[in-house]
Amino acid sequence: MSEQNTTQMDLSALRSIGYGMYVIGSRKGDRLNAQIANTVFQITSDPPTVAVSINKNNLTHELIKDSRAFSASVLCEDTPLSFIGRFGFKSGRDADKLAGVAYHIGETKSPVITENAVSYLEVRVTKEVDMGTHTVFIGEVVAAKVLSAKTCMTYAYYHEIKRGTTPKTAPTYAAQ
Amino acid sequence: MSEQNTTQMDLSALRSIGYGMYVIGSRKGDRLNAQIANTVFQITSDPPTVAVSINKNNLTHELIKDSRAFSASVLCEDTPLSFIGRFGFKSGRDADKLAGVAYHIGETKSPVITENAVSYLEVRVTKEVDMGTHTVFIGEVVAAKVLSAKTCMTYAYYHEIKRGTTPKTAPTYAAQ
Repeated sequence: MSEQNTTQMDLSALRSIGYGMYVIGSRKGDRLNAQIANTVFQITSDPPTVAVSINKNNLTHELIKDSRAFSASVLCEDTPLSFIGRFGFKSGRDADKLAGVAYHIGETKSPVITENAVSYLEVRVTKEVDMGTHTVFIGEVVAAKVLSAKTCMTYAYYHEIKRGTTPKTAPTYAAQ
Repeated sequence: MSEQNTTQMDLSALRSIGYGMYVIGSRKGDRLNAQIANTVFQITSDPPTVAVSINKNNLTHELIKDSRAFSASVLCEDTPLSFIGRFGFKSGRDADKLAGVAYHIGETKSPVITENAVSYLEVRVTKEVDMGTHTVFIGEVVAAKVLSAKTCMTYAYYHEIKRGTTPKTAPTYAAQ
């Protein structure tokens, strides 16, 4: 079946794209930071390559630009909203977001958040794609570990079940 | 808490990255094709920008390179495995994968698969990132529509509940 369609533009369709929920760890010198992201994705399997889209206004952007590395911790479904809020809605410029949180310093010297994490990856950045408001950082996975067999949190679960919201700096932000 | 960690490299951690399941529609002249992909993601919201990672060996790669456009249909959770198999494990070089499938010709002239779809997007490619085995096609969303309020299929659901497998050409392929 094939027929010409009239143009449709309902951007709420973008909300049906599926994601997980991640904490991205980064550093610049002695400065450590972490932020929530949902747009982490694998690009190739050989070599294992992963990308993340980060808003240029975020402190994480400045830190990854400097160190050319980041960690990504995959959050479990039962991660408390308060934990997500800590990393998602505060700037590392105003607060030490890692105080009291379980993490270690990884292979890339990035902080790797292990609290509420099902697994983590560390990535050395090999390419940056400038997309206006955001940069897509792409790189090779240099460390990876499974921490738990718990169910991962999906972005849909965060919105629908946890009633979580999205900050304006997210790639997937949509004005209500 | 902060401590030095010994290097870990367990690539099964990559399996906890979350994705949806999509049918990517493409064309070159009169040649239409469609394939399954899981690595579709939003990169910016203003303008609405979406990316997909496609293996260079796939017919879809040749078609998107030519037309610089593609469609992405978000599959619902109750999509039959046979429907996914049709688009995921056969090459459009050997079969007309669209025969008997519900689709329309969209704004970008790409075939837009509407069968088993919760929503769809059409994208005009503005950037290509060469990642060796794959190209990441990035572009602006020029059409989008929600078709159904059904639950979207996650990649995890496809693997765990449907017992689906991953072709070798997928960005997320892992040898068992």
